[in-house]
Amino acid sequence: MVQTANVFHTMQADLAKVEARLIAAATIDFPIVSGMVQDLVKAGGKRLRPLVLLLAGRAYTTDIDALVTAAAGVELLHTASLVHDDNIDRASLRRGRPTLNTSLSSGAVILIGDYLFAQSAMLAAATESPRVVGIFAASLGDICDGQLREMIDSHRVEQSRADYDRRIYGKTASLFAGAAEMGAVLGGAPNDHTAALRAYGSDLGMAFQIMDDVLDLREETADLGKPAGNDLLQGTVTLPTMLYAASLRSDSEDIARLRRIVTGETEDAAEIQATVTAIRRSGAIEAATEAAEIFVASAKSRLLIVPDSETASMLAEVADIALVRSS
Amino acid sequence: MVQTANVFHTMQADLAKVEARLIAAATIDFPIVSGMVQDLVKAGGKRLRPLVLLLAGRAYTTDIDALVTAAAGVELLHTASLVHDDNIDRASLRRGRPTLNTSLSSGAVILIGDYLFAQSAMLAAATESPRVVGIFAASLGDICDGQLREMIDSHRVEQSRADYDRRIYGKTASLFAGAAEMGAVLGGAPNDHTAALRAYGSDLGMAFQIMDDVLDLREETADLGKPAGNDLLQGTVTLPTMLYAASLRSDSEDIARLRRIVTGETEDAAEIQATVTAIRRSGAIEAATEAAEIFVASAKSRLLIVPDSETASMLAEVADIALVRSS
Repeated sequence: MVQTANVFHTMQADLAKVEARLIAAATIDFPIVSGMVQDLVKAGGKRLRPLVLLLAGRAYTTDIDALVTAAAGVELLHTASLVHDDNIDRASLRRGRPTLNTSLSSGAVILIGDYLFAQSAMLAAATESPRVVGIFAASLGDICDGQLREMIDSHRVEQSRADYDRRIYGKTASLFAGAAEMGAVLGGAPNDHTAALRAYGSDLGMAFQIMDDVLDLREETADLGKPAGNDLLQGTVTLPTMLYAASLRSDSEDIARLRRIVTGETEDAAEIQATVTAIRRSGAIEAATEAAEIFVASAKSRLLIVPDSETASMLAEVADIALVRSS
Repeated sequence: MVQTANVFHTMQADLAKVEARLIAAATIDFPIVSGMVQDLVKAGGKRLRPLVLLLAGRAYTTDIDALVTAAAGVELLHTASLVHDDNIDRASLRRGRPTLNTSLSSGAVILIGDYLFAQSAMLAAATESPRVVGIFAASLGDICDGQLREMIDSHRVEQSRADYDRRIYGKTASLFAGAAEMGAVLGGAPNDHTAALRAYGSDLGMAFQIMDDVLDLREETADLGKPAGNDLLQGTVTLPTMLYAASLRSDSEDIARLRRIVTGETEDAAEIQATVTAIRRSGAIEAATEAAEIFVASAKSRLLIVPDSETASMLAEVADIALVRSS
């Protein structure tokens, strides 16, 4: 973590500007709701998406106004998507804090998510770049596609790695890809650089989501800020679970138990805990982590084209953060 | 109705192009869902928002490509908003047809709404006009604001006309205003013309929503395609109800019954029917209709600035349609 703290230090001033834009955009004309939404936005983690966008742009320009605006838009789009996601999953905790679901009606939560989408689109529009707005809208479409796929694929143990990859590309990697692309476009990068940076963002996002899925099974509830094994309980089969399932005999009690959980036949805590433990012992956590490491290596390899070596090395640092993050 | 059919006839070719863009944008990569969403889009009424956009642009340009794109975007934004609205209200009918709620989970409906928002934003971005995208995003923000206000204001009988006007501006008039403004901007209209056309759209939208609220109380269930008095049942106090309430003594049984319904204390069909009948007999329907007529007259007065008299007269026809529409 000492090694990866550097990029946050160097980018502190830019990130502070993004933060200010973000808080301003999350202000709603209803005092109580506005406070809740601002708390939600403030609790928003490491700002990796804005960081990727800022760095991709910084590699080509020193004019950061439009970069800051787009970076705030990307983070707000992500936040809006989490609001709907938590509503759909009826989640009561996110990053250890109560979600909007715990204090507002489902209808109000849906509308607040929509409002944040609108505000994020306003930020994208404020860049005055039709190309950026196009990338922005396409990323939102991809996110919805990924989430619909997750819903349609859920409650089935038998799934292919291709299904999984496509799903997490939409759900997570598309916005990292879009963030890197928007930064490059606003920076005025040549088209082949823009494509390489987009691929970097995509690889990074894939690693990020795989590690998110690993953490859901590897860590304890107290460290996650949400219940461990939550994906299993939701019927979502992630890469570690997929690798674990593939290691089991088709007539084993382990696969039968996994199927009972994933199909929703049981929500018994002891059964879930037993499966989480079995997954941890199976080597699937390590194998999935290795898959994430491969994506990170691929992400870094895309950076060879970036002319500014200092920025390239910070982008490489961000890729490493996907692996070490604790929540 | 004979008189108002003219504009649809003249604009038939343009509207057919909008329709094709709309259907293409509503195609989703999941066959069953895609069919449902396309049916939903096809069942979409008179396309008044696209019509307003096309006409506002037509007054200044003959190049309609970007107008068609933006018009499809506006209609799709409206559709997306209805999908979330029906989900929030748990409505099972819209325009006499089953809503998505009847065949999909709430989560899937929310994601489909989000996907349609994304597709509509793609269309706005495809105009390549940052100003149009800005108007588009601001309209979405206004719609959410209006819907949040409706939610926050609901279940209370005591409300001001100012509350009502602000709410329906956001919920409905903002997108008509935005549609007219986008058309004018894409047509290259001078700023004062653009402002006048935006005001026209806003007035028209106000009239449109007032008549929608009137119809909910004036018409029978069979004609509405949804239950009559539905707004009352949802706890939404609209202009006719507001005018009716203002005519009642504060110690009357009528106001007590209205309060029981609006607060949700009762959902008794006989009580609702008795209140609907009392509202119809009170003159409030006529008074609310008159308020809509005033908005239509105001909308028409904005059109004096429009140089092309043929287009101005078609825009005036569209304003009249707000009053005569049957659902």
